[in-house]
Amino acid sequence: MSEDPRRVGVIIVAAGSGVRLGRGMPKALVRCAGRTLLELSLDGVRASAVAGHIRVVVPPGDTELRAIIDAYPSGVTIAAVDGGSSRPESVRAGLAALPADVDIVLVHDAARALTPPHVFHSVVAAVRGGAAAVVPGIAVSDTIKVVDGNTVTATPDRATLRAVQTPQGFDAATLHAAHAAVRDHGSVTDDAMLVESLGTPVTLAPGDPLAFKVTTPLDLMLAEAIVLQARAQAQEDQ
Amino acid sequence: MSEDPRRVGVIIVAAGSGVRLGRGMPKALVRCAGRTLLELSLDGVRASAVAGHIRVVVPPGDTELRAIIDAYPSGVTIAAVDGGSSRPESVRAGLAALPADVDIVLVHDAARALTPPHVFHSVVAAVRGGAAAVVPGIAVSDTIKVVDGNTVTATPDRATLRAVQTPQGFDAATLHAAHAAVRDHGSVTDDAMLVESLGTPVTLAPGDPLAFKVTTPLDLMLAEAIVLQARAQAQEDQ
Repeated sequence: MSEDPRRVGVIIVAAGSGVRLGRGMPKALVRCAGRTLLELSLDGVRASAVAGHIRVVVPPGDTELRAIIDAYPSGVTIAAVDGGSSRPESVRAGLAALPADVDIVLVHDAARALTPPHVFHSVVAAVRGGAAAVVPGIAVSDTIKVVDGNTVTATPDRATLRAVQTPQGFDAATLHAAHAAVRDHGSVTDDAMLVESLGTPVTLAPGDPLAFKVTTPLDLMLAEAIVLQARAQAQEDQ
Repeated sequence: MSEDPRRVGVIIVAAGSGVRLGRGMPKALVRCAGRTLLELSLDGVRASAVAGHIRVVVPPGDTELRAIIDAYPSGVTIAAVDGGSSRPESVRAGLAALPADVDIVLVHDAARALTPPHVFHSVVAAVRGGAAAVVPGIAVSDTIKVVDGNTVTATPDRATLRAVQTPQGFDAATLHAAHAAVRDHGSVTDDAMLVESLGTPVTLAPGDPLAFKVTTPLDLMLAEAIVLQARAQAQEDQ
């Protein structure tokens, strides 16, 4: 598989509604220490330098995210793509918009805006090393229980669980095949699930606590504290 | 079951080593905006006003946590208890130190230092309402995968999962029975698991994102931002 970033594409899913953040706007437009979550995630993709092509999936009808994307100095080919009515449809739209000669595809959530470059590097390296599908994951802090309504039905051994993050990385042919084969998307919450349902092995790579998803107001408070601290550190270092 | 707080005991588990925080001290001694995690959790228990008895399980040989506990103005009976070599043994030590006429026991992690009073109230109300065991839980943000080494073996439907928190609440007789019956504690990460292994139903109550466990340096950064913001708000309100 090529070492050439021009053969790597990133799909950034920025079609989330942001309901749980309660700001009345698409999540990727929410500002964190003055910068939108979309810009922060683009900064992460750019800093990683792994990809030659970025496609950002936005809510249909959006103009504000498109304006940010058009103005963003990514240094690579970048374009906005209209999303679909479900996450898999949105990813499929992004996939269709990548050049045909891309052989590694990363799927990344705009809400994981502070994902550090090493996570991108580990995921791409694992795909280059032969894995068809790679997910970054970290240990789970809380005990996780399976419930049926308000009754606990099981407690899986926490040592066997990982909280998975993005970017998730795929051999392009595998991701195309998974999206073509799977049509029932009822409970699909990540792209690796589509690959798993084909019976294709999915490999774990090291994630990072910084790759957390900004979902709640508390998550946003944490993201702001991190960005402000990094900015203060950068000024001190000058 | 009595409505009397004198019949409710809280065991605070403060025996954690804090390795992942990297401060070289027991986690409950780590300071967050000037106050130890132990004091912050005691503040939460006191604010909830649900319990007449607090027993704090500390690492054997500890003197610093004991000094904090001795000086703490809880308004109720409070004492430090030496922990054991595992979490269940520590809880058992706390349980043995509660008065015999306590009929509801809450088990709480000192590391969930910012747990709001409503979580205590919901858990106690559910036990009073007849539940033998109650865990507060919230929706899971990340997709959770089951792994075997670096290979993903399953992705449970995220909608059926809850991240569970503390305080966990128990009918005292049920918790005593569970601790007496279960001896193999290899993968026990919470007290409800002991009750589940008896076949006794465990009930879910509403948790709160604020009841997160301080495990990593990022968690501590978030806790500090929350405490400082609450303090600023309290000054504004004066």
